[in-house]
Amino acid sequence: MIAEGTEKQGDKIVTVKAVVFDAYGTLYDIQSVAAMTEQAFPGYGETVTQIWRIKQLEYTWLRSLMGRYESFWTVTRDSLEYTLSCLGLKDDGAFFDRIMDKYLHLDPYADAKQTLASLKNFRLAILSNGNQSMLDALVRNTGLDSHLDEVISIDSRKIFKPSPAAYELIEERLGVPPANVLFVSSNGFDAAGAKNFGLNVAWIRRAGPQAPRQDMDATGVLGPLGMFKALRMQSEALQLDPDHEIGSLSDLTGLLAKAA
Amino acid sequence: MIAEGTEKQGDKIVTVKAVVFDAYGTLYDIQSVAAMTEQAFPGYGETVTQIWRIKQLEYTWLRSLMGRYESFWTVTRDSLEYTLSCLGLKDDGAFFDRIMDKYLHLDPYADAKQTLASLKNFRLAILSNGNQSMLDALVRNTGLDSHLDEVISIDSRKIFKPSPAAYELIEERLGVPPANVLFVSSNGFDAAGAKNFGLNVAWIRRAGPQAPRQDMDATGVLGPLGMFKALRMQSEALQLDPDHEIGSLSDLTGLLAKAA
Repeated sequence: MIAEGTEKQGDKIVTVKAVVFDAYGTLYDIQSVAAMTEQAFPGYGETVTQIWRIKQLEYTWLRSLMGRYESFWTVTRDSLEYTLSCLGLKDDGAFFDRIMDKYLHLDPYADAKQTLASLKNFRLAILSNGNQSMLDALVRNTGLDSHLDEVISIDSRKIFKPSPAAYELIEERLGVPPANVLFVSSNGFDAAGAKNFGLNVAWIRRAGPQAPRQDMDATGVLGPLGMFKALRMQSEALQLDPDHEIGSLSDLTGLLAKAA
Repeated sequence: MIAEGTEKQGDKIVTVKAVVFDAYGTLYDIQSVAAMTEQAFPGYGETVTQIWRIKQLEYTWLRSLMGRYESFWTVTRDSLEYTLSCLGLKDDGAFFDRIMDKYLHLDPYADAKQTLASLKNFRLAILSNGNQSMLDALVRNTGLDSHLDEVISIDSRKIFKPSPAAYELIEERLGVPPANVLFVSSNGFDAAGAKNFGLNVAWIRRAGPQAPRQDMDATGVLGPLGMFKALRMQSEALQLDPDHEIGSLSDLTGLLAKAA
């Protein structure tokens, strides 16, 4: 039995007071830039989007490890620059700004708004690698701002997730200790980082349980989407498994009993 | 003019006393495991090898950032486990040990031994993410041990490259300050990390200058090898460019004047 405002983890009853979401890839579909990259570089949209995302994450980790923090906006620009350069694609000048602007207008997942509305009796927040101005513009442009109590950027800590310093901001800003927070992310590394820090974690398995072998051709060649899926589809082998594995944001409503 | 034991960087003359090499991907060809993965999983050898390497690196960075160090041996096993699992491939039991054993018998690049021999008047060392027993076995099994003064593992620091703590070990073990060390790596993140720390850096551009577009089919699909190339072929967009870009290990002989 799940009581009001609680969730059951094995034999343990956890009282959840706040639900905190990752932004990029969790509330917002970062693949929604693919239409734009495809328009700019016909035939390469998917490839650009996938390489870009992999390099973007790599640069957040590498900069954090080197003690050489730059904002997510800068990292996002740099990784796009790398991507176009390695594919031998030439930016027409305006493209770069247009595609970066899309980062301020990403599509929320179809069930994002409804899920947030259904959880209105919890403290609700975003904790994201994005810098504050990127995040504020995004939630305002997409109408999610009215559903969120806080939009927390890691920027004040100058280190990206999964550094524990990033997750500390939740208690600092919401006043809710880790044991009473459910952290929600579709990014395996982020779910692992949150678990490492001591939060309760729900990992959204967006890629589905299928192996990407079905994306391979007869010679075993895996396209970029298959490759991307392969890198992100499993819970990371870091001995930090999430408490819950869900298929979509809307599964949270069932996972968490409605608070009074 | 390049004087004995020195190299020229623009207008700056640098006195090199030690040449320190990355191991995996730099002195040793990690793609040499592909023959083994192909044998075990016909049609998937290349795909397994590429995903495995990407996850292996990701796990070194993620564990370092989370303060949750495990040895490179463990990380290498975990990332292989992830790879087989996401591809829906079943290990026959013996395979796992056989392929891990290959990590102790990787092929040195064809010019590795000759290059080390040509630089015998410098202090020569490896600085690697590998743990000491992996590295010692590898250099002994491949006969490079007699050419190296030191084989340095980051293991004693419990944090992986590109953390500055890893590169500190060079001066500690060789007694040569960063300004007098030439660090050689084919891994862009490692070249950036070494530069960030203050070493002189030669980056080996193994993937060649060609864009991987030539690896795409007509629909823009990039095979796993093309994807891997794309992720590693360029100098990282981290504003930490290497001092030298070379095509192979043997280019070092020309770069560094022979010491007396």
